[in-house]
Amino acid sequence: MLDELDLTDLSGRSGLKWVKATAVGAIPAWVADMDFPIPDPVRETLRSAAGGDLGYPAWDDDPRDNPLIDVYVERTARRHGHRPDPAGIRLFTEVIQALQAVLHVTTAPGDAVAMHTPSYPPFLETIERMGRRLVPLPLTDRGEGHVFDPSPLAGCAALILVNPQNPTGRVFTERELSGIATLAREHDVLVIADEIHSDLVHDPHRHLPFAPLAPERTVTLNSASKAFNLAGLRCAVADVAVPRVREALDRLPPMLLGQPGTLGVLGTVAAWEHGDPWLTEVRGLLDRNRRLVAEAFPRQRPPEATYLAWLDLHELGDDPAARVLTEAKVMLSPGPDFGPGGAGFARLNFATSRPVLEEVLRRLETIRSE
Amino acid sequence: MLDELDLTDLSGRSGLKWVKATAVGAIPAWVADMDFPIPDPVRETLRSAAGGDLGYPAWDDDPRDNPLIDVYVERTARRHGHRPDPAGIRLFTEVIQALQAVLHVTTAPGDAVAMHTPSYPPFLETIERMGRRLVPLPLTDRGEGHVFDPSPLAGCAALILVNPQNPTGRVFTERELSGIATLAREHDVLVIADEIHSDLVHDPHRHLPFAPLAPERTVTLNSASKAFNLAGLRCAVADVAVPRVREALDRLPPMLLGQPGTLGVLGTVAAWEHGDPWLTEVRGLLDRNRRLVAEAFPRQRPPEATYLAWLDLHELGDDPAARVLTEAKVMLSPGPDFGPGGAGFARLNFATSRPVLEEVLRRLETIRSE
Repeated sequence: MLDELDLTDLSGRSGLKWVKATAVGAIPAWVADMDFPIPDPVRETLRSAAGGDLGYPAWDDDPRDNPLIDVYVERTARRHGHRPDPAGIRLFTEVIQALQAVLHVTTAPGDAVAMHTPSYPPFLETIERMGRRLVPLPLTDRGEGHVFDPSPLAGCAALILVNPQNPTGRVFTERELSGIATLAREHDVLVIADEIHSDLVHDPHRHLPFAPLAPERTVTLNSASKAFNLAGLRCAVADVAVPRVREALDRLPPMLLGQPGTLGVLGTVAAWEHGDPWLTEVRGLLDRNRRLVAEAFPRQRPPEATYLAWLDLHELGDDPAARVLTEAKVMLSPGPDFGPGGAGFARLNFATSRPVLEEVLRRLETIRSE
Repeated sequence: MLDELDLTDLSGRSGLKWVKATAVGAIPAWVADMDFPIPDPVRETLRSAAGGDLGYPAWDDDPRDNPLIDVYVERTARRHGHRPDPAGIRLFTEVIQALQAVLHVTTAPGDAVAMHTPSYPPFLETIERMGRRLVPLPLTDRGEGHVFDPSPLAGCAALILVNPQNPTGRVFTERELSGIATLAREHDVLVIADEIHSDLVHDPHRHLPFAPLAPERTVTLNSASKAFNLAGLRCAVADVAVPRVREALDRLPPMLLGQPGTLGVLGTVAAWEHGDPWLTEVRGLLDRNRRLVAEAFPRQRPPEATYLAWLDLHELGDDPAARVLTEAKVMLSPGPDFGPGGAGFARLNFATSRPVLEEVLRRLETIRSE
């Protein structure tokens, strides 16, 4: 059973989500991991591989032989009706590595890089640490859900298009994506589409891959890490549809960027080939949890995707997560870390069991009514 | 039992070493993996981790928290009497990634890079693909074992010091290493010391880490992949003793080089902390095998380290491995791939069971006497 975590079971876990929260006696509702055990086929694959050959894998001589390439292509075709060209697939240890590699070979310090805000903090940090200039596409919610004006794209070298979006949980519509594609083409903007949450879209919303709208300028990033709870495997895929970006990556020293390990590859293959029954069950739990959060925050729109809720908690000050941690012993992700538009917000991770989520919501209710 | 492989058991393995050899009906004696099962503590650690939390690991917020850093420092101190500064440790997915990263930030195209020859082919390819200029330090054997003249070091930007050396199995002496250190200091040469075979040194030889001889100019690379048969984990350590190299690496985009996965880290920790009884047993088997090879090739000096024998097979032509594969159905590594000094040689991997090795040697004897 996936949904078995209870409040007496909050210690003894080894991941980042747990160690920092339990050290201060808080319930962890921050780092984007789920509290559910990983899919059985992944666990069995890893256990079996651990008992087998952990030497150089069969694909070591030629990265084109990596079994993950075909598995990714087939899965993307099956689920999203879009078949990437296998020749453009490159493997990385994580999406953020792929993002930085693409920015490194296609943009220069000082270049303008657009991104919806609020944004995943490591991407903000990437833009800052690489000396690029953030051009925010603010997501604003005037009671109709988060919308944005794409026009700042003009003049940007690249757009980091996180879709489904983190932290708002927006799933961009065909109209929105087409608008972006038109502007990107008009102003020659490279689109780096992070679609890591594309398997976690809630009905009736549908994930539309960006690449078919502008294949000549799109690099798509994905990983099983979010939907299958496998961030520690360190395995990600970049579909580099743009020949000039492939060539620029291929001009780097051939092993400079390293590669995922055999267990990362095999675990991801198992998730993408055999993990869908698990995923269906998990999406059911997440949808239930999304409704529990919506009941507690009836004036906010529930996320269209992800297990992350972007909570407006202005009544608790600019950094509500700090007060929630101290006073309610729940660890949320602080809104201000998400850049412009983050003050007064906190991000809640609701990928947990019903009793844990209910306790989190009860504690939030208590502090909000004080 | 580690030594149980027999000739009826040559198919059904998944690694590179096996698939390419068995596809042509040959015994694999090429890729540098061992035919022994991995240490029990590593297998148990991986199996247990596969059943636990595979989300973001506890060290995700700060690479300094990675448990492998202390484990590497303590093991190096314990086994080699040299204690690296933890502040200089950087993790990579493999030694060759670390090598390319260091060359990338410390040298430029056209720069001279010295290396003993014959050399590990991926390192030769690294120098060529990165546009550096190879300055060979030829290892020559006039019946007294392989010796070299270090004087070409003058004028080089860097030396790739593979010690123990691959493919000759030389373990450089204190006198040789001190000579290198003196010249490197005199001519301001950065030394990149690949010590990946340092746990596989045969009595009475002893591994001496290079770093203590010239800490101001040494980067040391290591991994559990060779000694513990774990290449597929993709986890390596660089001890960057040189502040300017640390700073140059740290100026790269922070996640550009990626990182090993949780299973790579935990498996390496298990090998380095709990694998030594297994290693002792394996070294005994390798020493026995080294003697079997020496009996078959009595005019050649046995390797001082590694499970690789650099066989002089000039009687079979410039590329003996090609003939051995076709006529004797044994897959060796072709000598010419190892660059200058490789013609007429082949590299034999003798990390296998006694019956397999005896069959390999019997086949080599047959073809040599034809």
